[in-house]
Amino acid sequence: MNRLIYLPLGGAGEIGMNAYVYGYGPKGKERLILVDLGVAFPDMDASPGVDLILPDVGWLHDKLDRLEAIFITHAHEDHIGALPHLWPGLEKKVYCRRFTATIGRLKFEEAGLPVDQIVTVEPRPATVEVGPFKVQFVPVSHSIPESSALVIDTPAGRIFHSADFKIDHTPVVGEGWDDARFSEIAAERPVKVMACDSTNVFSTHPGRSEATLAEPLTELIRSRSGMVVATTFGSNVARLKTLAEAARAADRTICVLGRSMKRMLSAAEEAAVLSGFPKTVSPEEALEVPRRNLMLLVTGSQGERRAASAQLSRGKYLGIEMKEGDTFLFSSKTIPGNERDVLRVWNAFSEMGVQVIDDQNGKYHVSGHANRPDLEHVHRLILPDMLIPMHGEHRHLTEHARIATESGIAAAVAPNGTMLDLTGDVPEVAEYVETGRLYMDGTSMIGALDGVVRDRIRMALNGVVTVTLILDETDTPMGEPWVELMGLPPTGRGERSLSETMEADLDEVIGRLGRKVLADDDKLEEEIRKVVRQVAMEEIGKKPEVTVVISRLVAE
Amino acid sequence: MNRLIYLPLGGAGEIGMNAYVYGYGPKGKERLILVDLGVAFPDMDASPGVDLILPDVGWLHDKLDRLEAIFITHAHEDHIGALPHLWPGLEKKVYCRRFTATIGRLKFEEAGLPVDQIVTVEPRPATVEVGPFKVQFVPVSHSIPESSALVIDTPAGRIFHSADFKIDHTPVVGEGWDDARFSEIAAERPVKVMACDSTNVFSTHPGRSEATLAEPLTELIRSRSGMVVATTFGSNVARLKTLAEAARAADRTICVLGRSMKRMLSAAEEAAVLSGFPKTVSPEEALEVPRRNLMLLVTGSQGERRAASAQLSRGKYLGIEMKEGDTFLFSSKTIPGNERDVLRVWNAFSEMGVQVIDDQNGKYHVSGHANRPDLEHVHRLILPDMLIPMHGEHRHLTEHARIATESGIAAAVAPNGTMLDLTGDVPEVAEYVETGRLYMDGTSMIGALDGVVRDRIRMALNGVVTVTLILDETDTPMGEPWVELMGLPPTGRGERSLSETMEADLDEVIGRLGRKVLADDDKLEEEIRKVVRQVAMEEIGKKPEVTVVISRLVAE
Repeated sequence: MNRLIYLPLGGAGEIGMNAYVYGYGPKGKERLILVDLGVAFPDMDASPGVDLILPDVGWLHDKLDRLEAIFITHAHEDHIGALPHLWPGLEKKVYCRRFTATIGRLKFEEAGLPVDQIVTVEPRPATVEVGPFKVQFVPVSHSIPESSALVIDTPAGRIFHSADFKIDHTPVVGEGWDDARFSEIAAERPVKVMACDSTNVFSTHPGRSEATLAEPLTELIRSRSGMVVATTFGSNVARLKTLAEAARAADRTICVLGRSMKRMLSAAEEAAVLSGFPKTVSPEEALEVPRRNLMLLVTGSQGERRAASAQLSRGKYLGIEMKEGDTFLFSSKTIPGNERDVLRVWNAFSEMGVQVIDDQNGKYHVSGHANRPDLEHVHRLILPDMLIPMHGEHRHLTEHARIATESGIAAAVAPNGTMLDLTGDVPEVAEYVETGRLYMDGTSMIGALDGVVRDRIRMALNGVVTVTLILDETDTPMGEPWVELMGLPPTGRGERSLSETMEADLDEVIGRLGRKVLADDDKLEEEIRKVVRQVAMEEIGKKPEVTVVISRLVAE
Repeated sequence: MNRLIYLPLGGAGEIGMNAYVYGYGPKGKERLILVDLGVAFPDMDASPGVDLILPDVGWLHDKLDRLEAIFITHAHEDHIGALPHLWPGLEKKVYCRRFTATIGRLKFEEAGLPVDQIVTVEPRPATVEVGPFKVQFVPVSHSIPESSALVIDTPAGRIFHSADFKIDHTPVVGEGWDDARFSEIAAERPVKVMACDSTNVFSTHPGRSEATLAEPLTELIRSRSGMVVATTFGSNVARLKTLAEAARAADRTICVLGRSMKRMLSAAEEAAVLSGFPKTVSPEEALEVPRRNLMLLVTGSQGERRAASAQLSRGKYLGIEMKEGDTFLFSSKTIPGNERDVLRVWNAFSEMGVQVIDDQNGKYHVSGHANRPDLEHVHRLILPDMLIPMHGEHRHLTEHARIATESGIAAAVAPNGTMLDLTGDVPEVAEYVETGRLYMDGTSMIGALDGVVRDRIRMALNGVVTVTLILDETDTPMGEPWVELMGLPPTGRGERSLSETMEADLDEVIGRLGRKVLADDDKLEEEIRKVVRQVAMEEIGKKPEVTVVISRLVAE
């Protein structure tokens, strides 16, 4: 008997790192497709030093003969970012719409991967047939061009995978929302399962259109006398267009700073989703424009240290400098966890006399995700038998399931690794699959639980003591043990040198150790560790990490 | 000629760590008072492993003969927290109101300091005279009992130091706001300078009273069928009372979990600022109460890992366990930077089936600080010649100065270390004083710029390689160099052992080094460092921190 399964490998239980598997076929032999392959971003608290976080798609690795294809819903990093890193282990065709394909091919080129594996698909009714799946791309509005929901037809029924979306009748870039487009999907064939974006389920007011920003932004930019600098996500091409047009209306020349933003704009033009973007000038040319006639569009809405906004907050960037009387606008929302970085930039501008303006509770920014009333509206249009909340932290999934259940739709909270059997009338847990996160660290890939990052966190919290001891052929210590401190105060109580106190105590203790301990690396190390921690507790009230290096000279 | 000066040592340019100096007298010989001595809290991004952040009051240390006294406006940690740590270097009488004194004496007792140095002062018209200063405590509402503004009279004029305050006519605990109390201060003697709380200057709506929470909280608690657990700041005694009374109205027995919360409640009763608090039961007794008749008040509104809320989110705490159908309420606001910790707790509860309710945009929480319209109202009551924004990040100070200036009040942005001369009609910068932050790290005090914490951050970001090399009396390496890795992936490209690759390359390079380099520790270390970093870049794409230990055997 064939079954229909759903398995999130990422994105369900977190915001970011989206990766969803659908399968159809006999149990354990289902044909599979993968929808999205995104990254999450590291932070100092939990993943210091890490460059990127990727979903562990190891579950797929021994099922490659069953994996039909990869579908990417849109070009945000949390949906496409892991593709160049994980594709080499999957090597399946990648289907997406034109703009997403443009971004995907840029990534493949940089990674030296075959760009012809990325296939551009036109929107519904165009259909990709792979194995038992017929997949169509349905245009939806979001904060990037050409985001698409997927209609996935299987012999067991129709799936509607919402991807990231909002209801926007006037989205500035791309097609406006049209209820008919969605009710038609359900009319054509009843929707068995809807997997649905959950990120904004706690926002209780209806979402607002991108087009509502034009007027307040134009007014704001017109009212300022100095240079105006605005930041937003580089991929929010509609916002960039709104900002640029507002700037033009205020007689300002536009200059774009930041590689990722420029890249998105040119990809949008290449994919023909953006036209009529006002002419921009180079940073050199911008220097010739009077400040009151200049508007910069810059990267760094999250206060990222290397982005243009942070660079400008620290001083000159590409010859351009912010000054008293200038204005900096965050046409963006701070993602939870980035508050400190954003405020650092804000305060640095404040010190320069630059007035910083944030989104002012939505006046200068609207979200790209559907809020609760919008989700409820879409539930009613699609009328699915089952609702699977996806893309959200556990709290979002639970809340989304709750509102679905309240309106009579069977719903299941399925965090990463929960395989659901969707064959019947209600979702049932089929299996729990081991999933996890991979850390891209420099050029290495390490498991989140490998201990490498745990050690980094411990070193940062506790500091490190390295003890070196040399013993001769007869297991007799040669000279005193040597102590090095890293990340620890150099002196303890009464201004005594901490390392010297440790060395003295170690020397004394080691002098009293018996032959058996001295001859045994493990026991000796344990003794040394004990002394170091004890001295540290007494002297500085901390228990540091301890590395012991025992060198034994051998007769030649 | 005498002058009047103001010097923030902490709190101006940040939220937290308040410490303000006022002085009057001949230049360089001013008699001084210190207002507040608070802490700030560390974070993993900037101060990993640190326990507390304190203002550097070193400027006062060689002026102790000029320091008259310390005044503490209220018992929040960011106003009193540094007192037990820094008082031993100051040793001056500490003046405060009864509740603050109760908390202060507890701290002094724990630190083994003389509690008789803390002097309880009654509110205005009671007056403390120290040197040229006459100081009165003016009751204001805030999120802790007995917060007080200070009227500081000097021969050069009257100062109104607002401390942390809000306008609340029905504050549940303490006296309600009364305009007359403040206009009277200005009527009695014109206020030359107002130093004013700036934390909420970006909140554009008028603040709401603590009393507005009783009804919605009662309704909420009454509507829940399982156990209800609520968190708020332990020092917000009024909120605790509101929550407890709401619980009683809903027929629930109250149990308080968390040391700091219990301590605040008993201090409030001791200081006679709290009466009629409903009877509470112990955790053991709570276990006997049906869940629908139980309400817990717990610490940990900021998701702190060791607080009761986080403990409950991880499992049993003192025998009590949250279950499906229970409710957890954050009657609090998340302080920027604590989002991740709070959401971790929220998601963990969500996984248990516990419904989490946040402040719902103010329905279940009100701020303890004056919002912009309230600040403007107080400016009009006090009518100062000059306004000095205090307690806020740079952006708050700037904005507060801007609104003061717009209404015709001379204002100056004076971040920590900016000494203002307030003798004339407008504030003038007299001097820039070196200030900074001290880190309490275990039992040590280290300077924020000492490099200790910088090393910790580097280790966390880059990992650590320790290389040990032994040379004999003739500077000949004995055996191979030994490499230890911490916080680094064990293997590089092609699954080669990273440490073995490093050892092999080091051995080869060291084998080629000339006598001169081998005999010179610095040069040898530099060569080793270079090789290690080069191998690391090639193998794992990272530049780790490198510790080199060179041991030289000497002929005995």
